[in-house]
Amino acid sequence: MSNKLIEVEALARRLREFASDRDWQQFHSPKNLAMALTGEIGELVEIFQWMSEGESKHAGTSERTAPAVREELADVTLYLVRLADVLGVDLNAAVAEKLRVNATKYPVDAARGSARKYNDLERG
Amino acid sequence: MSNKLIEVEALARRLREFASDRDWQQFHSPKNLAMALTGEIGELVEIFQWMSEGESKHAGTSERTAPAVREELADVTLYLVRLADVLGVDLNAAVAEKLRVNATKYPVDAARGSARKYNDLERG
Amino acid sequence: MSNKLIEVEALARRLREFASDRDWQQFHSPKNLAMALTGEIGELVEIFQWMSEGESKHAGTSERTAPAVREELADVTLYLVRLADVLGVDLNAAVAEKLRVNATKYPVDAARGSARKYNDLERG
Amino acid sequence: MSNKLIEVEALARRLREFASDRDWQQFHSPKNLAMALTGEIGELVEIFQWMSEGESKHAGTSERTAPAVREELADVTLYLVRLADVLGVDLNAAVAEKLRVNATKYPVDAARGSARKYNDLERG
Repeated sequence: MSNKLIEVEALARRLREFASDRDWQQFHSPKNLAMALTGEIGELVEIFQWMSEGESKHAGTSERTAPAVREELADVTLYLVRLADVLGVDLNAAVAEKLRVNATKYPVDAARGSARKYNDLERG
Repeated sequence: MSNKLIEVEALARRLREFASDRDWQQFHSPKNLAMALTGEIGELVEIFQWMSEGESKHAGTSERTAPAVREELADVTLYLVRLADVLGVDLNAAVAEKLRVNATKYPVDAARGSARKYNDLERG
Repeated sequence: MSNKLIEVEALARRLREFASDRDWQQFHSPKNLAMALTGEIGELVEIFQWMSEGESKHAGTSERTAPAVREELADVTLYLVRLADVLGVDLNAAVAEKLRVNATKYPVDAARGSARKYNDLERG
Repeated sequence: MSNKLIEVEALARRLREFASDRDWQQFHSPKNLAMALTGEIGELVEIFQWMSEGESKHAGTSERTAPAVREELADVTLYLVRLADVLGVDLNAAVAEKLRVNATKYPVDAARGSARKYNDLERG
């Protein structure tokens, strides 16, 4: 069993092969992959755009929307893992580092229930 | 050792606790988290926007840009895993399903070296 | 008085000069400007991400958020107009054309009050 | 003739009527419209994602890509103008204000030919 927060190496390897088999590495610069990731986020966001917050909570299980939700989440994941791979970034280490920063920056007592504090976090 | 392509449960659990400790679940509707993910993608894309494709290949290792690259990739990962968690979506299963679709849709011989074919994939 | 739906030429000219004076045309490929536009959208979306829909209706007039709303809307507008300009696209003509398509596609009676119909529009 | 940098009121009025005729104002909160704008940006970015910068310069005139470029630029414009309208923001005033800020912040001599300076502008 792994001690990691996330483990993406098997997927990264699979995507490397997939690209290599099709001679697609030439298109996979970080710049291009960041754009492709943007496109997929756009498709994900479209699912939720006219829903209320309450409705969005059922989007992952509702028969009408779940297939699209799964597909777009998968697409975002594929491009994110591929992008980190071509950049040579260890996603697990990057995530662990960011969690440490967030824990220090947002002590439980000061941040409790406050969207404003929370928002500040994102500017950090 | 896991047979999974990706393993995100430890991170999902950590983010659940982080939100719960701060009473932030109230802000974490899928609709809101999809927007937060958009914001992080925007920050990631900004890193690459004035770089050439060639320059972008060194962005993950160059001293000047690597810290920002790691931080923004981490932020995207945190929100993606949190979003999948509140939606009740198994990211590994969703990814495996999408890879099967892509493999069928883009046979090696037909897709080789073609950005146009590749592009079609994204519309699938 | 103009018969146009929108008129952006004075701004386009100003942005051309601004870029030219600073020798920034070299960075203003459509690919790069589309990425810059993404970054600005990210900053705009961040303003609304933790707001309820009701709260978001006051974001343009509330003292706390109005300056940021105006600034991010301006930034999106600047990059959009600059992007259309370097692409040689007449925004007013493009908008007029799209409005005609939408009017035909979404007859008043069939579309009334339906988010689903509305959503289909975006896929068109 | 107008002294404005941009003039969008005729389009804003048209979009108001279009929404009102279909009883779509209920979906048009700023939060929702910001998400819809994200989706359209995603579609715009997809056009350029596998192009080189050089290729992207012809995307607005090339027969193969020009119709999609015009359509996605139009969609972004529609949602941007609609969003500013429901927020009660005067886009022309917001743009004029931002141009003044940028001119002060980026004096011609200091900014010339520097992507780094330029990049700082976006953080401003």
